[in-house]
Amino acid sequence: MIKHLLFDIDDTLFPSTEFAELARKNALRAMVEVGINIELHELERTLEKVIKEKNSNYPKHFDEVCRIHKIKKPARYIAAAVAAYHNTKMSILPYPEIPRMLLTLRENGYKLYTATNGNAIKQWDKLIRLGIALYFEDVFVSDEVGEEKSVIFFKDVLKKLKAIPEECVMIGDREDSDIIPAKKIGMYAIRVRRGKYAKGKTCADANVRDFSNILEIIKSLENK
Amino acid sequence: MIKHLLFDIDDTLFPSTEFAELARKNALRAMVEVGINIELHELERTLEKVIKEKNSNYPKHFDEVCRIHKIKKPARYIAAAVAAYHNTKMSILPYPEIPRMLLTLRENGYKLYTATNGNAIKQWDKLIRLGIALYFEDVFVSDEVGEEKSVIFFKDVLKKLKAIPEECVMIGDREDSDIIPAKKIGMYAIRVRRGKYAKGKTCADANVRDFSNILEIIKSLENK
Repeated sequence: MIKHLLFDIDDTLFPSTEFAELARKNALRAMVEVGINIELHELERTLEKVIKEKNSNYPKHFDEVCRIHKIKKPARYIAAAVAAYHNTKMSILPYPEIPRMLLTLRENGYKLYTATNGNAIKQWDKLIRLGIALYFEDVFVSDEVGEEKSVIFFKDVLKKLKAIPEECVMIGDREDSDIIPAKKIGMYAIRVRRGKYAKGKTCADANVRDFSNILEIIKSLENK
Repeated sequence: MIKHLLFDIDDTLFPSTEFAELARKNALRAMVEVGINIELHELERTLEKVIKEKNSNYPKHFDEVCRIHKIKKPARYIAAAVAAYHNTKMSILPYPEIPRMLLTLRENGYKLYTATNGNAIKQWDKLIRLGIALYFEDVFVSDEVGEEKSVIFFKDVLKKLKAIPEECVMIGDREDSDIIPAKKIGMYAIRVRRGKYAKGKTCADANVRDFSNILEIIKSLENK
């Protein structure tokens, strides 16, 4: 009997890729607004290069953009960029059907969790800003296991839940980190066809483009 | 002839003490809202103690509050506290007469700067959030001199401005770090009687409770 539903967060519960791109664009616009003397499209090209070289979690993207353009007193522009970036990141919204879906699942007796890479505070922060923290029992994060989402990670989740695999469904957009390891240890898995990983083959038990029929799909899994 | 006006920021341009207190209170309220099982007034007492022990810039106040109350899974509460804290800090507003005052001073040909302890990005961040960054030529910060606001700090400012002391007015709320060192090297100084340092003796050239007559006061300094 299915009891526990595990959700990925990024591009599963909210359009994280879109928001990240918008946040970066707003940051560069803010640099121009406070007077950096460089065209927006040039800044965009530079930032793209910086993101490719460092990774996307590198915390000093805008410092690096200023350095490349040889800006002598960069503090004003960095401050403007970071403020605009954070303002955008702070106004993230869930996919429209998510809050109602979570409420329905709770009303039907399921326990809800998130399962993500990263650290617990950052994941709770996202759930709080998305306005959906209340629905979740707990967040499972790779930092606590010392292992990104993998078979080992999901085994640890089972242990913490004191559950057997058949009681759990993993729901996420990525075949490699959400679907394959969950299926490998015997959980159910639902692949969300959203964001940049929407396409490709899957070994998931079901595919969804949004969550409008998720309750029926979860109920049908046990009868397969 | 007075050309350059140097402003302190905290409790001079905006009520920083008030906002910091509100931010902390909102953070603790958010912890209660997401379900920490401790009374608000108890959390307040704990936080007060933590702030006294560590200093007010210690970045892990809320982690420490959770540790003291032996919260087993603190990530949810820390995330809620930090989000509420930053949301409050992000909606800072200047004292009501400040934007108009800055515009008037610019129209009268004065060059405006800030002179503060700390680092440049943080100060620009405040000016941007206060909506007044546009009025300022530059920020002078202790981090670049390696010396908190002092005679050495203000000498460095003069050098950067290529100015003589009589061309400068320092405007701030603190006798020790704003007024005394500025006067010592021969600048004019105006003491702002606001916030927790409002009281006490001063060697400033003038005292103000707000900035409504600041233009007349600055003009009168040269005729003293």
